[in-house]
Amino acid sequence: MNATIKDIITVKNRINKLINNTPVLTSSMLNKWLGHEVYFKAEGFQKIGAFKARGACNTIAWLIENNQRPNHIIANSSGNHAQAVAWASKIFDIPATIYMPDFSSKVKIQATSSYGANVVLCESRAMVDEKVIQESKKDDVYWIPPFNHEQVILGQGTAIYETLQEIGEVDAVFAPCGGGGLLSGSLIAAKGLFPKTKVIGAEPLNANDASMSLQKNTIQRLTSTPQTLADGAMTLAVGDITFEYLKKLDEFYEIKESEMIYWTQWLTHLLKVRIEPTSALSMEAAKQWMQKQSKKKKIVILLSGSNIDHVTNQKIWKDDMLLKKPSL
Amino acid sequence: MNATIKDIITVKNRINKLINNTPVLTSSMLNKWLGHEVYFKAEGFQKIGAFKARGACNTIAWLIENNQRPNHIIANSSGNHAQAVAWASKIFDIPATIYMPDFSSKVKIQATSSYGANVVLCESRAMVDEKVIQESKKDDVYWIPPFNHEQVILGQGTAIYETLQEIGEVDAVFAPCGGGGLLSGSLIAAKGLFPKTKVIGAEPLNANDASMSLQKNTIQRLTSTPQTLADGAMTLAVGDITFEYLKKLDEFYEIKESEMIYWTQWLTHLLKVRIEPTSALSMEAAKQWMQKQSKKKKIVILLSGSNIDHVTNQKIWKDDMLLKKPSL
Repeated sequence: MNATIKDIITVKNRINKLINNTPVLTSSMLNKWLGHEVYFKAEGFQKIGAFKARGACNTIAWLIENNQRPNHIIANSSGNHAQAVAWASKIFDIPATIYMPDFSSKVKIQATSSYGANVVLCESRAMVDEKVIQESKKDDVYWIPPFNHEQVILGQGTAIYETLQEIGEVDAVFAPCGGGGLLSGSLIAAKGLFPKTKVIGAEPLNANDASMSLQKNTIQRLTSTPQTLADGAMTLAVGDITFEYLKKLDEFYEIKESEMIYWTQWLTHLLKVRIEPTSALSMEAAKQWMQKQSKKKKIVILLSGSNIDHVTNQKIWKDDMLLKKPSL
Repeated sequence: MNATIKDIITVKNRINKLINNTPVLTSSMLNKWLGHEVYFKAEGFQKIGAFKARGACNTIAWLIENNQRPNHIIANSSGNHAQAVAWASKIFDIPATIYMPDFSSKVKIQATSSYGANVVLCESRAMVDEKVIQESKKDDVYWIPPFNHEQVILGQGTAIYETLQEIGEVDAVFAPCGGGGLLSGSLIAAKGLFPKTKVIGAEPLNANDASMSLQKNTIQRLTSTPQTLADGAMTLAVGDITFEYLKKLDEFYEIKESEMIYWTQWLTHLLKVRIEPTSALSMEAAKQWMQKQSKKKKIVILLSGSNIDHVTNQKIWKDDMLLKKPSL
């Protein structure tokens, strides 16, 4: 895959009327405290409450544009991708079946069915994956994978494209890493518009497969479900397509759970938007990066989404993190 | 006070460049579930995170316009009004002293000082009020009260004015009642633009002084601090100016704490913005009102703000309210 900024622009034009051009937020107080200019792309205000709507909707629109309209769409996910594929299938009026583990949060299962998809609950993540591979072999069924797909990657890249169109060149862009789709798309968009802009990834320390893969220069797979509040970054391994992009990142940070909780609380407090912990990963990476800078920088933090289940929410707000003001 | 829509327009022009024209949000899912068209004016995105910025900033701008620029501004509040006066004084470069009870949340005290105000902590609410009255007698000191003031009322009214300018005529407007400033301003704006639009208030059942005052046709004062999560509606009594407006309301609802918690969780979940419990009051009132309607209605819910302290936040998210889907 050798995508360029032209591909991002094609995709942006393709999905422009279907997705939200989400707002770019700032906090004058945070900027004062940190001494840098920080912009937040709030993908919580995207359709289904997360950036995943972009990739799912682009993939279906692209299939239709190429006369490959499927009769049935399937996906496997316990999170935002499930809702994204359900929503996107609905707007193109194509039946969808989403395979989800039965331990997924009720509110996410409910949301996925609300978009009209048929939800099939399986006993384990392994069974979910097995099911979707089996079903994808059927005629006229199209499987939209969560990240390792050219059109999914290009769709996710439109978030940073929109941001830089709006605020101009920045010194660095920070995004969280699950399977690497968002970071791959962000790389194509940011470097395509401004070659000097750094693109920097962040992952939970407790789910550091991408970081390990980059260090060993070969894809590493976690052997068990990682213990992290960042449910958007729990992926066991990156894909072969996304890995080639991740190798081009300027830097990569591993983030502790406590740091993620700290920024989830503070960004909620300062920006007044719902922040899912995965979104807070990039902010801590940005903080650590800013500590190393000698001049004032202009940066973008990609807030991945705003979908949080009850148990995660209670863990985030257990202790009061707002007693300690952010500083570098 | 005989204010009209012309006064609101004058105020809107006066403060237009200083305040945010906050977004109007909708949830297609909520509209589907309820069968009505519901718009939310998100004052959490206002300066200082609440509508109070409007009234505070208008009062100072009006004083200056009338050659009465004070040398010192004072206010008494434990909540959003404290931050609003601190912020507004700062933009006009006037020193401010805010008297707050020492049991106010640390994050609110911190925010108030962050805007550059001198914060004086007092042992009780009574001492706070005593102090501010005493200080207000000094020369060149101006006291901005939280609601019972013509210019404060007109400032708060710009929120509904902006909303109706943006979305056109609606069947009803819902706003929470603390001291009645927001409702009074909303009445002037809504009835001035569209005489047929209903303006409806909501108050916690546990702090129902305004409701009792309307029933008895004379201002009733609570004798002790009410037990409610809606800290923006804990005011002990409405004012003589606001009471005259409240008498003109079309309806008034008393809301249970559990109903407030339910909508705080659901509106956070659906709109992806931080919702303070006071904001959820109007939604429950709207729900009860919609249950009585035979035709589809178009309504506005005024979300007062997004400032929540840690203790309140934990109380809101104790139980999972997202298991029961909203319906009429």
